[in-house]
Amino acid sequence: MFSRETYIARRQELKTEVKQGILLFPGNGESSMNYKDNWYPFRQDSSFLYYTGINNIPGIYFVIDIENDREILFGDDPTPEEMVWIGAATPLSDLAERSGISGVKPFKELSTFLARQKQKGNKIHFLPPYRSETTFQLSNFLGIPVGEVEKNKSEAFIKAVAKQRAVKSPEEIRELHKAVNITAKMHTYAIQNAVPGKTEKEIAGDLQAIAIGGGGNISFPIILTKNGQYLHNHATQAVIEEGDLILCDCGAETAMNYAGDMTRTFPAGKTFSPLQKQVYNIVLNAHNSAVEALKPGVRFKDIHLLACTRLTEGLKEMGLMKGNTEEAVAAGAHTLFFQCGLGHMMGMDVHDMENLGEAYVGYTEDLKKSTAFGLKSLRLGKALEPGYVLTVEPGIYFNPFLIDSWRSQKKYTEFVNYDEVEKFKGFGGIRVEEDFVITPSGSELLGEPLAKTPEDIENLKNV
Amino acid sequence: MFSRETYIARRQELKTEVKQGILLFPGNGESSMNYKDNWYPFRQDSSFLYYTGINNIPGIYFVIDIENDREILFGDDPTPEEMVWIGAATPLSDLAERSGISGVKPFKELSTFLARQKQKGNKIHFLPPYRSETTFQLSNFLGIPVGEVEKNKSEAFIKAVAKQRAVKSPEEIRELHKAVNITAKMHTYAIQNAVPGKTEKEIAGDLQAIAIGGGGNISFPIILTKNGQYLHNHATQAVIEEGDLILCDCGAETAMNYAGDMTRTFPAGKTFSPLQKQVYNIVLNAHNSAVEALKPGVRFKDIHLLACTRLTEGLKEMGLMKGNTEEAVAAGAHTLFFQCGLGHMMGMDVHDMENLGEAYVGYTEDLKKSTAFGLKSLRLGKALEPGYVLTVEPGIYFNPFLIDSWRSQKKYTEFVNYDEVEKFKGFGGIRVEEDFVITPSGSELLGEPLAKTPEDIENLKNV
Repeated sequence: MFSRETYIARRQELKTEVKQGILLFPGNGESSMNYKDNWYPFRQDSSFLYYTGINNIPGIYFVIDIENDREILFGDDPTPEEMVWIGAATPLSDLAERSGISGVKPFKELSTFLARQKQKGNKIHFLPPYRSETTFQLSNFLGIPVGEVEKNKSEAFIKAVAKQRAVKSPEEIRELHKAVNITAKMHTYAIQNAVPGKTEKEIAGDLQAIAIGGGGNISFPIILTKNGQYLHNHATQAVIEEGDLILCDCGAETAMNYAGDMTRTFPAGKTFSPLQKQVYNIVLNAHNSAVEALKPGVRFKDIHLLACTRLTEGLKEMGLMKGNTEEAVAAGAHTLFFQCGLGHMMGMDVHDMENLGEAYVGYTEDLKKSTAFGLKSLRLGKALEPGYVLTVEPGIYFNPFLIDSWRSQKKYTEFVNYDEVEKFKGFGGIRVEEDFVITPSGSELLGEPLAKTPEDIENLKNV
Repeated sequence: MFSRETYIARRQELKTEVKQGILLFPGNGESSMNYKDNWYPFRQDSSFLYYTGINNIPGIYFVIDIENDREILFGDDPTPEEMVWIGAATPLSDLAERSGISGVKPFKELSTFLARQKQKGNKIHFLPPYRSETTFQLSNFLGIPVGEVEKNKSEAFIKAVAKQRAVKSPEEIRELHKAVNITAKMHTYAIQNAVPGKTEKEIAGDLQAIAIGGGGNISFPIILTKNGQYLHNHATQAVIEEGDLILCDCGAETAMNYAGDMTRTFPAGKTFSPLQKQVYNIVLNAHNSAVEALKPGVRFKDIHLLACTRLTEGLKEMGLMKGNTEEAVAAGAHTLFFQCGLGHMMGMDVHDMENLGEAYVGYTEDLKKSTAFGLKSLRLGKALEPGYVLTVEPGIYFNPFLIDSWRSQKKYTEFVNYDEVEKFKGFGGIRVEEDFVITPSGSELLGEPLAKTPEDIENLKNV
């Protein structure tokens, strides 16, 4: 937990921004796996955490009542009989106190409290829910049909939270450095241990152990695959073989739920093949160009397009693409190889605040997200500001389904040498990803640097 | 996946048992963690798996239409664009074929299909849902208010499934042996590595890695704690210290989702203290007595009470309890030290079929579950049958909250020497748990035997 003052200040800023009504923060509950009481690891909602700092307590709600200038935590301490199962728990009143919240009430009073506020005509603001349980609770508490909860979300509340959480404070940056350093440890392990004979899942399990040992857990499902051409391909029981190119995209989140997210691509054997190295260097060059361009005021969409340009130049040099680079990128021909976005905001959520909506988090009134293939997967487009934390993760992916499909449609034939591309259908995919905080003059890498050139990766493998 | 014939036979038996109507199996969907698309590891519903064998495909439903003697899998193959993200997927028609299911239809036709069946007056049977998403889907598909879905569950369907899944086939037993062997590896690791200086979470992470490396995942949240007096106390960031008694209760589930579940309690240092050994041997003696009593026809409730008797005898010898043993157990005085049940069914769910309801899975019309403290946590009471798979897990837990609360209430003062018990408030808890299959003549241990006496555990620690 950060200091009491931190949370008080955050809530003060939020109240000043939203101005009126009741701000409702539904805490997450336990999430059932294969029967009601067999639970997935508990994860508190990030906005709840951001404004209260109270972690690891399922089934509590927090309310900021701007109208009456009070803050109330609704929840129940465990009974002695519940403590037979779960052990001692810090009383909610202590937790509230550490966060500077003065009021604690039993959970059963929440319903009446909200009904009374509604009756008084006070607006009850809530963020868009992403778990069915929460939708269902909001429906009950607020008397809104389940199917209509989503559309009753508060835009004013969303905007205020998105604005505030987007800019990371120095203490948050320190926590993010920590998350990325644990993440880098995971990658070092993968680079050194994802060798022929191991299964993808064995390595993925070991990586999760490093994340858990770091005090938190993984920040998203681990991608550890010899089939890196598929963007979100999770670890399977496939056995790693000599010659495989392994793509590892994983991250830890700290005990305070700040996330890291990195990708490295490396050979299962001792060295990259010359061809693997060639494609790798195109991606790395695009990556480095993008990183150099990071600074306040620059639109991330433009940096994305810069990376696409670098990728296209490289692919042209290899004879896989042709024609005018600028035209190819404008047409979207490079999306045959780079089907997604260059990066996303990162914070307490690995795709930070994704549940608030990309329209608010990654774009503006003046810059809406494109619906074109490729750009529609770019989660962040708007101009950067100091304190933004984001990933940079260009890649080249030879997806055989897409190649076949577009070739048969004669798509982008003026920019793509399909006969050459055909030879890469078994190549796989390469991505290089790091995390940065935007500074007043540019950007700073989060975490200690980790081997990134083919040579450094080979050296790290073979220490 | 087992053989095609296995699944066909299971469904045939089920149809014969339920006789009429539509049997609806909602497959699980993805479960959101901190925003919609950041998912917990996917876990298919166990009854869905039992009757189809189709694993790892979220968002599909299976229907057995007894009225028209047909079986249909409702779901959609990924589009080429979805394959950009998730890669190649086996077509649903292939998966259906492997399971002997003849029909596959797009998911969007499910709603119309069910509406038509309802119109025809066919009973649509479903099992009690345990995820809000499923409740919400059933509400929509069947036109039942969300709050009334649960009470519309089909008792005939529940009973038929509970009866069938309770008796494990030889191929299931093989899979359970595998699950328990992976589980035993986790315990061996814990016994050897949960040493002073490590955090509970570091060890828990490593244990999860072993489970994942085994091809599946953990079967329930890992309990790895120096505070074993709390029954379900999960791993924390507490640092293990010399003198700590570590309780590890964990299990793996295989790639086919069969679960293991074992507990060992061991010293963090090299040896048990004489006092720790003394309490341990009371638990072990109760454990061994219970195991010897396992055989068809014996009620598990009676074996539970036998274990309680052994525990009480031991606690009396130590001067912690007093009075007539039989009367103490009948009164429930031992529940100050053993607050829960002796064991539970185990299968594809670690608490097998818990979502179907303990009234059906663990009890009968003639033997209802007791509501008394202690017995109300006994999930299995009924007479054993060959093929049942269950855990045996007695324990002694010195819970300071319960001791204080009962002492102040003067509860069981004729059976409890509170002055002596007071001295054990910092002792912790001890549990010994193994898994068994009931055979025609008794029982068989699942998995290879793992060190269980204090001496064997000390030897295993110090190899």
